[in-house]
Amino acid sequence: MRTQVAIIGAGPSGLLLGQLLHKAGIDNVIIERQSPDYVLGRIRAGILEQIMVDLLHEAGVGERVAKEGTVHHSIELVYKNTRHPIDVTGLTQGKVVTAYGQTEITRDLMDARQAAGLPTVYNAANVSVHGFDGAKPSVRYEKDGQTHELQCDFIAGCDGFHGVCRASVQDSITEYEKVYPFGWIGVLADVPPVSPHAVVYANSERGFGLCSMRSLTRSRYYVQCPIDDKVEQWSDDRFWDELRRRLDPAMAEAIVTGPSIEKSIAPLRSFVAEPMRFGRLFLAGDAAHIVPPTGAKGLNLAASDVKYLSTAFIEHYREKSDAGIDHYSQRALARVWRAERFSWWLTSLMHRFPDTGGFGQKVQEAELEYLVNSEAMSRSLAENYVGLPLDFGQK
Amino acid sequence: MRTQVAIIGAGPSGLLLGQLLHKAGIDNVIIERQSPDYVLGRIRAGILEQIMVDLLHEAGVGERVAKEGTVHHSIELVYKNTRHPIDVTGLTQGKVVTAYGQTEITRDLMDARQAAGLPTVYNAANVSVHGFDGAKPSVRYEKDGQTHELQCDFIAGCDGFHGVCRASVQDSITEYEKVYPFGWIGVLADVPPVSPHAVVYANSERGFGLCSMRSLTRSRYYVQCPIDDKVEQWSDDRFWDELRRRLDPAMAEAIVTGPSIEKSIAPLRSFVAEPMRFGRLFLAGDAAHIVPPTGAKGLNLAASDVKYLSTAFIEHYREKSDAGIDHYSQRALARVWRAERFSWWLTSLMHRFPDTGGFGQKVQEAELEYLVNSEAMSRSLAENYVGLPLDFGQK
Repeated sequence: MRTQVAIIGAGPSGLLLGQLLHKAGIDNVIIERQSPDYVLGRIRAGILEQIMVDLLHEAGVGERVAKEGTVHHSIELVYKNTRHPIDVTGLTQGKVVTAYGQTEITRDLMDARQAAGLPTVYNAANVSVHGFDGAKPSVRYEKDGQTHELQCDFIAGCDGFHGVCRASVQDSITEYEKVYPFGWIGVLADVPPVSPHAVVYANSERGFGLCSMRSLTRSRYYVQCPIDDKVEQWSDDRFWDELRRRLDPAMAEAIVTGPSIEKSIAPLRSFVAEPMRFGRLFLAGDAAHIVPPTGAKGLNLAASDVKYLSTAFIEHYREKSDAGIDHYSQRALARVWRAERFSWWLTSLMHRFPDTGGFGQKVQEAELEYLVNSEAMSRSLAENYVGLPLDFGQK
Repeated sequence: MRTQVAIIGAGPSGLLLGQLLHKAGIDNVIIERQSPDYVLGRIRAGILEQIMVDLLHEAGVGERVAKEGTVHHSIELVYKNTRHPIDVTGLTQGKVVTAYGQTEITRDLMDARQAAGLPTVYNAANVSVHGFDGAKPSVRYEKDGQTHELQCDFIAGCDGFHGVCRASVQDSITEYEKVYPFGWIGVLADVPPVSPHAVVYANSERGFGLCSMRSLTRSRYYVQCPIDDKVEQWSDDRFWDELRRRLDPAMAEAIVTGPSIEKSIAPLRSFVAEPMRFGRLFLAGDAAHIVPPTGAKGLNLAASDVKYLSTAFIEHYREKSDAGIDHYSQRALARVWRAERFSWWLTSLMHRFPDTGGFGQKVQEAELEYLVNSEAMSRSLAENYVGLPLDFGQK
């Protein structure tokens, strides 16, 4: 079997890349280790930068996000149990973010891929990548007891943090990592979100809390918890009680609770692997970098990688120019580090750190007080939240 | 002897407070441990916020700073040996800072105090403060072998970090402190400054460097050095060579060097003591808080303390209102913490930290890259550099 671009991973990065390439007339095959249902079952991000929404439109799957997504014009910071709305749209000359679940994006892209009859190999075992240092890369995998080989021009590693692509170049990368000394326990519940038009970020004496949403009938809530807590320690009642105590009184009273349909504890990690290109192998999304979820940059960063990468491939095939390919790693990483900085900063600002000391705690409070009172600093938060332009800094 | 306000310390804080009170018709006596020459010999800050310059005018000593001070409209950030000017004035609707040495301010204030015939006791030994919990505070000191007692309504502790006033309330304060893992070696030289209209802040692979000035013929330069270095290890030649290597090539070539007339190594420290009022005793300036010199906030913060405190005393005597006195600590500390945050942030951004790790180093680089390319973040730097308004956050 042969294709132009072999894509490893059928998550949103791989599916979006496949769709953008298909629209540009570039053949591609997706190889995925899991089943479609497994991929769809992953509960992840839900706040989209306009860049991501635009890409969905460009990929021909923008219809549902335009209809069902909820536009957010602000952020609610809660600090010492008092609300401080940040007018994101006013501060960014009209920009917004859109609440729309990652699962829905995956479904939209899967449906489009199926409708277009594009090849996707699910349940592929023992996937491995070869020959990307030379001119003839290939992907091998096993399926239904048979070994298959896919010849290609390029391999796109969209296979996530634990995927095979980065593991295949482990000796050629430099890794940067920060692990935070706490986790988030998250609950998904079919209740209307307490704040349907703005994500709520709460810094309280009891730790961080977050009110987000997937739709107007499905809420996603989190509270900061000790890193070694177990889900079993968190009954629904305890979770709701703890969340309420981290919000402002009006919000705490207004929140509609209900049985959790998913509940899990996630660690918070910052991670970047450099470079993101190895000959004819390219990493994109979580395969190359992880951000803590504070600020909602993970999925959006995957989207900008895919934008740079699809543009590079399109330039290669249409314009016979490898400039985009040659610059992919540098361009993507510049944006990755901006988002890593933002995610680290917002995480540092909003959480209680067990070892921060008195001075660190007071500086955090001073920074929050400065942020909510300074238009310049509020604008800095807002411009990062809606997503810095793809050509930021290219004056 | 009796006065209305006893001021401990004849540095710029105490002298400025004395002059402002005198202008308002409030009697005051300054008690200083050292001699006038010793006080004048202290080489310290030199970049004044407009708030400070306005206060000097209010105190009747603005003539010379207006004539001899050098107005700065920008900051030069040097990062990876490349200059990035920050248009401070453009970003703050016309605000500026003024380069004018602390020593000159002290001299101007001393001259004005002498001309007005106001009492200042220099070389006062064993100064101690009493009775400030009640209605009748007093200050005792020894001079020329005699013990003296000064009765007063209020005591203003303007006696610096090592002064007696904070030490007298040690059991009633909470201290917050951060010590940085490096120092600055500073050189004062009678050479024209390489950048007469903007302070240069350099972040290089070799560490931080700073080019400041006291006048158009006197320069103040610093480089980050290990905390346990000794001045003897730093010949003038070594210092100039190291500074040049931290600047951009054009600046390194343009710098005029000369023999140091002062050379010393200072540690970098953030420190705050809370509260700043104890009955009828008030702390102001370094007596209550220290910032690392990055961002030039130390003297300016002393000035805003003095502004709040003089206003409080004036309200007390003129309007028979103690509102300013009651709010002094809270008002002053809110501004102190904003400046502590700024100084900590700029210090963190511009220095090499021995233990920051790969991720921390990359985030610092991303922050610098973001700062110089984001108008919002540049404005945040600029508005802090020129000094946030005295009523910041009081909407």
